[in-house]
Amino acid sequence: MQNHLKKTIRKRSQKTGLPPGSLVHIGRQRSQGTRITVIDYDETRFIEQDVASAEACFSFRDKPTVTWINIDGINQTEVLEKIGACYDLHPLVMEDILNTEQRPKIENYDAYLYIVLKMLYYDDKTASVSTEQISLIVGQNHIISFQEGIEGDVFNHVRELLRNEKGRARRLGADYLAYSLVDAVVDNYFSILEKLGESIEALEEKLVTNPTAETLHQIHYLKREMIFLRKAVWPLREVIGGLERGESAIISDATRIYLRDVYDHTIQVIDTIETYRDMVSGMLDIYLSSVSNRLNAVMKVLTIIATIFMPLTFIAGVYGMNFRYMPELEWRYGYFVIWVVMLIVGICMGVYFKRKKWL
Amino acid sequence: MQNHLKKTIRKRSQKTGLPPGSLVHIGRQRSQGTRITVIDYDETRFIEQDVASAEACFSFRDKPTVTWINIDGINQTEVLEKIGACYDLHPLVMEDILNTEQRPKIENYDAYLYIVLKMLYYDDKTASVSTEQISLIVGQNHIISFQEGIEGDVFNHVRELLRNEKGRARRLGADYLAYSLVDAVVDNYFSILEKLGESIEALEEKLVTNPTAETLHQIHYLKREMIFLRKAVWPLREVIGGLERGESAIISDATRIYLRDVYDHTIQVIDTIETYRDMVSGMLDIYLSSVSNRLNAVMKVLTIIATIFMPLTFIAGVYGMNFRYMPELEWRYGYFVIWVVMLIVGICMGVYFKRKKWL
Amino acid sequence: MQNHLKKTIRKRSQKTGLPPGSLVHIGRQRSQGTRITVIDYDETRFIEQDVASAEACFSFRDKPTVTWINIDGINQTEVLEKIGACYDLHPLVMEDILNTEQRPKIENYDAYLYIVLKMLYYDDKTASVSTEQISLIVGQNHIISFQEGIEGDVFNHVRELLRNEKGRARRLGADYLAYSLVDAVVDNYFSILEKLGESIEALEEKLVTNPTAETLHQIHYLKREMIFLRKAVWPLREVIGGLERGESAIISDATRIYLRDVYDHTIQVIDTIETYRDMVSGMLDIYLSSVSNRLNAVMKVLTIIATIFMPLTFIAGVYGMNFRYMPELEWRYGYFVIWVVMLIVGICMGVYFKRKKWL
Amino acid sequence: MQNHLKKTIRKRSQKTGLPPGSLVHIGRQRSQGTRITVIDYDETRFIEQDVASAEACFSFRDKPTVTWINIDGINQTEVLEKIGACYDLHPLVMEDILNTEQRPKIENYDAYLYIVLKMLYYDDKTASVSTEQISLIVGQNHIISFQEGIEGDVFNHVRELLRNEKGRARRLGADYLAYSLVDAVVDNYFSILEKLGESIEALEEKLVTNPTAETLHQIHYLKREMIFLRKAVWPLREVIGGLERGESAIISDATRIYLRDVYDHTIQVIDTIETYRDMVSGMLDIYLSSVSNRLNAVMKVLTIIATIFMPLTFIAGVYGMNFRYMPELEWRYGYFVIWVVMLIVGICMGVYFKRKKWL
Amino acid sequence: MQNHLKKTIRKRSQKTGLPPGSLVHIGRQRSQGTRITVIDYDETRFIEQDVASAEACFSFRDKPTVTWINIDGINQTEVLEKIGACYDLHPLVMEDILNTEQRPKIENYDAYLYIVLKMLYYDDKTASVSTEQISLIVGQNHIISFQEGIEGDVFNHVRELLRNEKGRARRLGADYLAYSLVDAVVDNYFSILEKLGESIEALEEKLVTNPTAETLHQIHYLKREMIFLRKAVWPLREVIGGLERGESAIISDATRIYLRDVYDHTIQVIDTIETYRDMVSGMLDIYLSSVSNRLNAVMKVLTIIATIFMPLTFIAGVYGMNFRYMPELEWRYGYFVIWVVMLIVGICMGVYFKRKKWL
Repeated sequence: MQNHLKKTIRKRSQKTGLPPGSLVHIGRQRSQGTRITVIDYDETRFIEQDVASAEACFSFRDKPTVTWINIDGINQTEVLEKIGACYDLHPLVMEDILNTEQRPKIENYDAYLYIVLKMLYYDDKTASVSTEQISLIVGQNHIISFQEGIEGDVFNHVRELLRNEKGRARRLGADYLAYSLVDAVVDNYFSILEKLGESIEALEEKLVTNPTAETLHQIHYLKREMIFLRKAVWPLREVIGGLERGESAIISDATRIYLRDVYDHTIQVIDTIETYRDMVSGMLDIYLSSVSNRLNAVMKVLTIIATIFMPLTFIAGVYGMNFRYMPELEWRYGYFVIWVVMLIVGICMGVYFKRKKWL
Repeated sequence: MQNHLKKTIRKRSQKTGLPPGSLVHIGRQRSQGTRITVIDYDETRFIEQDVASAEACFSFRDKPTVTWINIDGINQTEVLEKIGACYDLHPLVMEDILNTEQRPKIENYDAYLYIVLKMLYYDDKTASVSTEQISLIVGQNHIISFQEGIEGDVFNHVRELLRNEKGRARRLGADYLAYSLVDAVVDNYFSILEKLGESIEALEEKLVTNPTAETLHQIHYLKREMIFLRKAVWPLREVIGGLERGESAIISDATRIYLRDVYDHTIQVIDTIETYRDMVSGMLDIYLSSVSNRLNAVMKVLTIIATIFMPLTFIAGVYGMNFRYMPELEWRYGYFVIWVVMLIVGICMGVYFKRKKWL
Repeated sequence: MQNHLKKTIRKRSQKTGLPPGSLVHIGRQRSQGTRITVIDYDETRFIEQDVASAEACFSFRDKPTVTWINIDGINQTEVLEKIGACYDLHPLVMEDILNTEQRPKIENYDAYLYIVLKMLYYDDKTASVSTEQISLIVGQNHIISFQEGIEGDVFNHVRELLRNEKGRARRLGADYLAYSLVDAVVDNYFSILEKLGESIEALEEKLVTNPTAETLHQIHYLKREMIFLRKAVWPLREVIGGLERGESAIISDATRIYLRDVYDHTIQVIDTIETYRDMVSGMLDIYLSSVSNRLNAVMKVLTIIATIFMPLTFIAGVYGMNFRYMPELEWRYGYFVIWVVMLIVGICMGVYFKRKKWL
Repeated sequence: MQNHLKKTIRKRSQKTGLPPGSLVHIGRQRSQGTRITVIDYDETRFIEQDVASAEACFSFRDKPTVTWINIDGINQTEVLEKIGACYDLHPLVMEDILNTEQRPKIENYDAYLYIVLKMLYYDDKTASVSTEQISLIVGQNHIISFQEGIEGDVFNHVRELLRNEKGRARRLGADYLAYSLVDAVVDNYFSILEKLGESIEALEEKLVTNPTAETLHQIHYLKREMIFLRKAVWPLREVIGGLERGESAIISDATRIYLRDVYDHTIQVIDTIETYRDMVSGMLDIYLSSVSNRLNAVMKVLTIIATIFMPLTFIAGVYGMNFRYMPELEWRYGYFVIWVVMLIVGICMGVYFKRKKWL
Repeated sequence: MQNHLKKTIRKRSQKTGLPPGSLVHIGRQRSQGTRITVIDYDETRFIEQDVASAEACFSFRDKPTVTWINIDGINQTEVLEKIGACYDLHPLVMEDILNTEQRPKIENYDAYLYIVLKMLYYDDKTASVSTEQISLIVGQNHIISFQEGIEGDVFNHVRELLRNEKGRARRLGADYLAYSLVDAVVDNYFSILEKLGESIEALEEKLVTNPTAETLHQIHYLKREMIFLRKAVWPLREVIGGLERGESAIISDATRIYLRDVYDHTIQVIDTIETYRDMVSGMLDIYLSSVSNRLNAVMKVLTIIATIFMPLTFIAGVYGMNFRYMPELEWRYGYFVIWVVMLIVGICMGVYFKRKKWL
């Protein structure tokens, strides 16, 4: 979680003092190189290739086919600069692509839409969620996607669908491709939520059987992951809502129906996060009251022991006194009588605690 | 409750990677087979029959009578495919019908309305609430309902009303039938709430008389059921509000007045759930402070015992010392005097605690 | 409070399975018989009479005078049926009149307004608030009010005003009468709030002087009464706001100014309920921390006693040992020296606690 | 605070049963007599005089000059009745003027605006805030202000400004005077907040240095004052917002800019109250955890003492046993050895606690 | 924090009683003198100079070039008066410039916009955030900025950009300069947040390893800083949103796109503050439960010691009794047997606690 914190803020201040529009990469450095992949298709043709330099993409610009340029790794700002110049991107858009500390958002620049999303990855080893920012430029017949450069993404099945000549994806335009990408990102959230759901279940199990101070830290950790997740997902609602309500001519009506579907999924993701938050809060309550209950149990043991043995020790103490004239000491069965007395006292205490339901 | 968790999320991720519109059943498998029942009626005629295959329904499509096709069990996706083709359902609708993890919602596809609702069942044995999703396709003169396939539903009295030639239900169209179905679902919520209300009362009783750690878990469990119920019911407000405000030509004005009534009921259900939530929260407070109170009681017993017997044991200890010159030991009535002293000390302590209201 | 719970839900489920519009009385049975009173007036004439049957009211229907038919007790559904037929009430309205579990609401049926309100009664003996539902049918020149049938209502002064020939009430129409009735209901809330305010004050007093476990239950009880009251009053805001904003032609502009006044009162009632809720929440905090404080006090007593007597008992124990060679035991003033030592130890402990401010 | 409670509700119920518009004074009786002051001015003339009776004001009504009639004390309802008749006030306005339990509000009666505000006074002795309601009738060229009758008000500097011939106030109309009065009321809130801010600071100081049960009650008291203040100030936002947005022709555009300024001040007051509420809540948290911390400290002392002396007392007890054959007792240096053993045990315990950081 | 409190309120009351528009400096006195700097530029020319008096600025007023007059220190009200007269500022604007206790806001006076912002400074020594208010007058071709007079500001890089002939800044008008200044202020917030983020991380570290009462006060302190920060930043949202939505002709469309960017940053700042608040709240929970856990640990030690030694001491006490007939005392191996018994009792207790997982 301390990583999240760092991720959100670090390095931002490095840029303080530069003119707006300066291309400086803000955020964690995720990769060294930059890998550019181009997919170009229409209903009949399909080209998929890795290209060595930004210039290689320019030839696709004026074709009527749909072009998807995917750029993995944003450290080499000159690549971005060239593509920005070719596709006429606004300086602020280019600045934002490099700033990986953004909230999901959508901006309408008439000629294209600029969409920022967060891909989430779940690391099984540390049980933590990490993010990779993806920027989409959605034009009339091209999509440019910028990823931070973490190995792999969530778009493999989109590529698969495009490769398949008979799929609906090939017949429809760039807006449907944009929908497919957004859908892939949101669909992936469900698998993250599943993992978190499992963590919550496991923690609950533990909470009932054997709560420790460690459990508390795990609850706290989960709570934080929720805050973090919520921050990444919540603005999506507006983003996809904005896309769907059709403030841009780039999105066709046919695609809007599909976007409504993604919108529903987003609401469902947010809903589930809220439910998880409620659950985790409830677990904290349970934890705290189980701590109180255990304190009660400890104190009862102490009280029972003290209440039984203090009077007995007192009695023993009395007959340990060295007064010259203590008639009981002289009695033949004094010692046995005193044992009987002590037994009776002990039994009375036991009955008392039994009645109080402490035993 | 761990079931709820699983229900909400599980199997969703199986679908990641499939193209949108793929017909895959998401959610718990509730039944093996699929049972199709058709009710077809107008003011004078009434047909009710079980049909063996989806094709048997097609003949009803172009009749002017109102047709209600009820499909129980959605595992056999080919049935859905055939009906979807016959009634021209959008691929996303068919996908959503199979996904039983949805929130209640309404979607307007001009030719028909697509409504998702949750039927609730209360299991007396486990004192838990389970859901069955029901999808309604409301067309001009037909209604298609898809249930997950749990044995039984809440529509028996609707069927009864339709069988009765003189009822209002037979004179009115498919929109009134849709209202009747929605009304049946919402009416059923009241009986669920009654059951939960009884659980709350029983728990309250217990909380006052004999709160245990078990009580805490029951409160927690009830709280969860509330979160779960709220999630199922809350979106209904929007759904029925949307129906009533008349965004679709399928709903006639006469039916709208009835929908306003269902809307009121929904508000009342939500209201009651909120009240229950407040009550359950209050019970948690009570529980926690009763734990504190009991700790106080335990500590008082300990303190009283210790405060009385420690000084007495000390006195006995003093006269158990073996100094050669201890004048008291030689006194004839030393032992009796010391008993008197100890009694006085004990009584003083008792009076002190009486005054402090600890006894 | 368990009554409230029962009231909200019970018997609702009896109706599950009946067609919408079925006239079944839902809610607690409040009275056996039904009493019908008619007041008919204009500026010059005034008639007030108890009538034996519903039919006796029909003659007033077509008169130009203002008619107020008050029906006390709704168990005899045939009375309601006759009146409903005569005044042409919608089946859903009649169903709602019999359902005494409703939220306050207003519905506009063009020819008349249907208003549901809650009258509140404060029972001094049990210190609890109970409700009686009142349904108003406000037509152009008639008002029909249905009460659950509890003895007495809050309208006596309205009747008094109508009897008085010179009052404004006689000159104005049915809408002003409707206002007067609503105003009487809301005005009555202030006296209920006064009673609750007194309970809160008394409880506060107790909380400061002598908080017991009983106090906690009383706080909890008050909190519940607030939840219950809030539920009854909150929707009124919308109801009266709706009346005032003039969505109906039945309400004249002159009456609207008066309704604005009632609206203000409703806001003030809601405001006061919220303030009370805040107060009661604050009292819970105070209670919980006073429990903690008392635990602290108990523990201090225990610790002081133990800390003083444990070392002393140890010293006494040392000189109770039976070693053959213990030089101190042989000293002439050993015993007195040891007393001095023990006194010094005791005083040191006392000073230590004095400094720590525990004494 | 119990006063606030009483103020909010008491005597309200006395009025239950009277017709709307009845002139009955609701609220605490603040003064016996009624004092009427008239200020009449335009750019060149200025008259300020105390008048003996309501009739003396009537001559000012038709003059073109601006007239400010200030009525201090509202017990003599006949004064109000006369003025109401002369200036044609609505019966409900006159009723509201007498009801000093109102929320701040604004009502537009075309010919005049009716504004209700709360003046606040801080009583240094009891450290409590009290209110005085002020009703303003703002007409085209007259302002009538009704105060409850507490000695003094916050308008002295407004009067001073009017007396000064060169001030802007004399050139501008009744609406600017209304602004000045509202501004004076709101400005006064800042000094109240200052006082409360000082109380909070003092309490914080105390909380850190020496928290007692008394501190808790003071926090609670402050919290209540905040609830009370908030209730008095919050509706102002709407009132002044309504004035500024210009729903009335009485307010000129020039004055609107000044009202925007007052609006800003109101927001700032509300903001500060919210900040104080957050602070006071934080103080409660601090208090509760300091109570827990002190409990911890107490328990540590007890545990240290018990853990050191219980084993030692046990050892002493062992060698106080009277067995015939106890070889250690016969040893020459047994006693000294046992002292060494006991010292070692004691030191071990000390080291253990040192390591646990309890010492 | 006590400083914040004082800053918010102090000295405000000094002004009570003065006519609106009086020029009195409210707030902490930050500097003695006043320093005026003028920057005047267009695409080709650039003048930057310190001027001695307000009059020296007047010559720039009617030039077509963009003029930025920066006034550092607002104690000398005559400077403000002269500039206000020259640039025709509304009296309320001049009053507001001198009142450094304001919320961020924007006001549209047709000929110019009046913007109030808060610059934040982080003091590393006290780990506290302080504010400096900056007022911007944005006219058609001039900007006047008033700072409270703290040494230094956040605008150095803006000046640098202006000095550079080739920058975009020199080509664009006063509205772009206004944007640059607002952007500089908001960008600076990120570095403040970074510092606070580091404090939170450090505190978390401490919370896990070694929580003390000091930690609690630090959490509380951070919570307060958050309240304070939130109050300073939250209204910015509206301010910049207002600028961007273009309610003024002074802001050109080209600049609006840049303002949208600042708006995004503001949302991000607010978002981060909210996240921090959630984190700090979570830390409080952790702290409180760690206090409870430590109490548990302390009590366990006490209970273990008491439970082991009380029975043993009792046994020793029994055989310290002086009855004449105690057969065990005479046994040859009585003493050794009793040691064995005591060892067994001790071991049993140890096993019991081991099983209860207390050891």
